[in-house]
Amino acid sequence: MPLWKIYHPVGKFSAEDKQAIAQRITSIYRALPKFYVGVVFQEVPEDSFFVGGEPADDFVRIWVDHIARTFNDEEIKARFLNACSQLLAPFISDRGLRWEMHVDETPFSLWSIHGLRPPPPDSVAEKRWIADNRPTAYQADDSRPGASSAS
Amino acid sequence: MPLWKIYHPVGKFSAEDKQAIAQRITSIYRALPKFYVGVVFQEVPEDSFFVGGEPADDFVRIWVDHIARTFNDEEIKARFLNACSQLLAPFISDRGLRWEMHVDETPFSLWSIHGLRPPPPDSVAEKRWIADNRPTAYQADDSRPGASSAS
Amino acid sequence: MPLWKIYHPVGKFSAEDKQAIAQRITSIYRALPKFYVGVVFQEVPEDSFFVGGEPADDFVRIWVDHIARTFNDEEIKARFLNACSQLLAPFISDRGLRWEMHVDETPFSLWSIHGLRPPPPDSVAEKRWIADNRPTAYQADDSRPGASSAS
Repeated sequence: MPLWKIYHPVGKFSAEDKQAIAQRITSIYRALPKFYVGVVFQEVPEDSFFVGGEPADDFVRIWVDHIARTFNDEEIKARFLNACSQLLAPFISDRGLRWEMHVDETPFSLWSIHGLRPPPPDSVAEKRWIADNRPTAYQADDSRPGASSAS
Repeated sequence: MPLWKIYHPVGKFSAEDKQAIAQRITSIYRALPKFYVGVVFQEVPEDSFFVGGEPADDFVRIWVDHIARTFNDEEIKARFLNACSQLLAPFISDRGLRWEMHVDETPFSLWSIHGLRPPPPDSVAEKRWIADNRPTAYQADDSRPGASSAS
Repeated sequence: MPLWKIYHPVGKFSAEDKQAIAQRITSIYRALPKFYVGVVFQEVPEDSFFVGGEPADDFVRIWVDHIARTFNDEEIKARFLNACSQLLAPFISDRGLRWEMHVDETPFSLWSIHGLRPPPPDSVAEKRWIADNRPTAYQADDSRPGASSAS
């Protein structure tokens, strides 16, 4: 559901950095199946990356599409953005890189995984997708709310 | 109008595959001028592509922006997503690749082609753009609804 | 805030062209801090870029996310799109390239720069960000409207 796109300067992130960042991002969405979280890194050469009209070799630009869930209030949005700052800090701000991120929220009903419509939030089927960590066909009946994992 | 962005693993699609996919995508939008349909393919190395925090070399991630039309009901959305699944199957799921797609709908009034504001849906001018398969300047008067091509 | 993504054919823009385009884009947003304006150029090989199902080596496709401001009326949208056409003309249409652009508007409240929530439009803090051309922490009190720069 969340698709993260991370534009970064050439050579600033190693393969290990990228995996660590992707794992940290995935860990934020702990109510979701892990496989919902997609991350794409893209190096941008300095002559193709501009901030305020000036070439940038120290800037990380992240855009995110949220699909599976929408945030209902300002407090949750603030907490989410803070959590992102903290998890990314060792790789970005602590290394002296500038950065910016923004999130859009796109329609749940225009989304498919492996040709399946993802089940409703917190449904029986979504809980199975979490447990299996992969999408499987489900009956309409399993679109009903699932038992809380705490119960 | 629709802009399709297709992230795919390195070397999984040949030039012929990409053209065939782009033509199939274009064929879905048969009510629109063909040139409205843009498709950009981008290879993503395994060390830059993650699903659930794990590197992915078998995953195709598609995002789409719809501009010229918005879907009014759930039935049409479901049919659209099914049509996409079927047309992409020979290139993706039939080859054992995992995939995910999502669509956003963006404002018609913030869109231009070659500096022109595209004409309203089903207008006289849009019908001319379909026939010519290119954008041409049009009079305000041609923003009126066009005769149905069936009439 | 505005993030511009410019897909273009291989070799059509020099480093100087790209800097000039980024500076022209930045100049449109004169009410905003300059560093809000991000531009990413990406070359797309002809075998990965399609318009209407046909490979394109003469097409520039731009998508833009607007975050800091939303347009309230049709007149302003039309003026914005016209301004974009004029500033891009020497690099695109005057060189015989086809082009298309579209803009989405995404939530102000899901945006951060260097871990800070950007200040409200036309606030005291935003005026300081404009003057400093960089993001700095600010007090809640500086979220109030700032004096007009004309006063």
